[in-house]
Amino acid sequence: MSHSSFAITVDKMSVDSAKSHDAVEDYVAVEEPLEIRLGYATPDGHTATSLSITMRTPGSDAELAVGFLYSESIISSADEITSVEHCGTAAPDTGNHNIIRVDLTPDVVVDIGRLQRHFYTTSSCGVCGKSSLEALRVTGQEPLPVANGQFERSVLIAMPETLRARQQTFEQTGGLHAAAAFDSQGEILVVHEDVGRHNAVDKVVGSLLTQGLLPANEFGLIVSGRASFELMQKTLVAGFPLLAAVSAPSSLAVQLAKEFNVSLVGFLRGDTFNVYSAADRIT
Amino acid sequence: MSHSSFAITVDKMSVDSAKSHDAVEDYVAVEEPLEIRLGYATPDGHTATSLSITMRTPGSDAELAVGFLYSESIISSADEITSVEHCGTAAPDTGNHNIIRVDLTPDVVVDIGRLQRHFYTTSSCGVCGKSSLEALRVTGQEPLPVANGQFERSVLIAMPETLRARQQTFEQTGGLHAAAAFDSQGEILVVHEDVGRHNAVDKVVGSLLTQGLLPANEFGLIVSGRASFELMQKTLVAGFPLLAAVSAPSSLAVQLAKEFNVSLVGFLRGDTFNVYSAADRIT
Repeated sequence: MSHSSFAITVDKMSVDSAKSHDAVEDYVAVEEPLEIRLGYATPDGHTATSLSITMRTPGSDAELAVGFLYSESIISSADEITSVEHCGTAAPDTGNHNIIRVDLTPDVVVDIGRLQRHFYTTSSCGVCGKSSLEALRVTGQEPLPVANGQFERSVLIAMPETLRARQQTFEQTGGLHAAAAFDSQGEILVVHEDVGRHNAVDKVVGSLLTQGLLPANEFGLIVSGRASFELMQKTLVAGFPLLAAVSAPSSLAVQLAKEFNVSLVGFLRGDTFNVYSAADRIT
Repeated sequence: MSHSSFAITVDKMSVDSAKSHDAVEDYVAVEEPLEIRLGYATPDGHTATSLSITMRTPGSDAELAVGFLYSESIISSADEITSVEHCGTAAPDTGNHNIIRVDLTPDVVVDIGRLQRHFYTTSSCGVCGKSSLEALRVTGQEPLPVANGQFERSVLIAMPETLRARQQTFEQTGGLHAAAAFDSQGEILVVHEDVGRHNAVDKVVGSLLTQGLLPANEFGLIVSGRASFELMQKTLVAGFPLLAAVSAPSSLAVQLAKEFNVSLVGFLRGDTFNVYSAADRIT
């Protein structure tokens, strides 16, 4: 059985009941919770705490956990990690392990109180768009220089088809979001799928970190769906100069992109697209 | 300015640079955080606490807040609410109020400790699919009787177009999810849009509660995107016997639907659809 999909029997119906109600085999995308635990040094020794539970598609849990820690600015380098391991017992139905623990080197100072405030102000985004932007400024993000990354129109327009060709589980189930990092030639470096679009992006960020490719100053990030505030925030922290979405951006994604000079491309389909900010990187 | 969308100028580009790079006016869907606060009686008087922050599209905040409280089993009737009011100051950029407070009658006992455990086990879904299902069983949900609701194939097949015709902001922005409650004749009772699909469903649940229409024993719920575990959970708590999704369901949504005898319809497009559980309600 694949981690990311499994076969079930469904009733396929049509309005013409004579030719329908066939029981057919179909595949559904797997959705299971993953608990991310963080092991870190304290003045009294080493401790572990539960950081997050997310509904994800099993398969690249280590990349997801590491990418999440990076996106949330809890770690800034792969060198700060000593181990990433599943723990606990497997889920009885599927055999998947749904707890993963990331241990950090003793020199990484983790202030859990600060983390909780951080989750409140950034993951939860404060209480108005303005304060969300303030919260990001506090984490030390600076607007990106225009020189980072240049992308030709023809490269961008070809990306959705390139991405689709790499979405194995989507083809089977129609049920997954995809995210990929690509270079200025349109070559995909890393691609991941997940039932949650934020998880697909965290998996990409985690893979790039593990491969020593962060910050992603010269790469673009493409997502199969819409561009929300949360995805733009992850784009920014990972250093991508460009986020391309096959579908629409939200108001807060546009605001954040303009504020930090990230190129935001939306409605990338057919042979046109919209640019919502920093159009000078598109040549 | 509309609450749910606003106009911006974008660069529209195509691969043929001669006819492109037009600056055009476009609309984006508004995404802003909403903090939901709960006011309730304690042995020492009346207090208020922050329950949740969600990224939502402004416009039906009262319905969203009330629907969230119902979906999370914090309230079980509209009679338990004394007031629903925005508080705090408006966001400087948009003029939207992004804090809403729901006050409950003195006889409603709110155990904040229990609530926090509840959020951990249901919103966060425990640590494997199995324990999520256990958690729902604990809240007192029983499998639905088959007699609840009957829907003809032709009614289901017509629903996506009916829904689309009512999605005003989607037409403008392409950036919103929609959810609607409909009856066995295919008439829409309530429809809402939001950048977050769980918010669109909470708005529908809140509207039905306010109108005295819960539990929704005879209605179907349709969503414009995919069916996740979280959406199936809300469907179940609100008492809908059927959830129809235009796109794919996840594995855990299917598992939950089977466990509680909710009819789950997916890939509802064109003139066919798939039924993943409780097909006997579809006639």
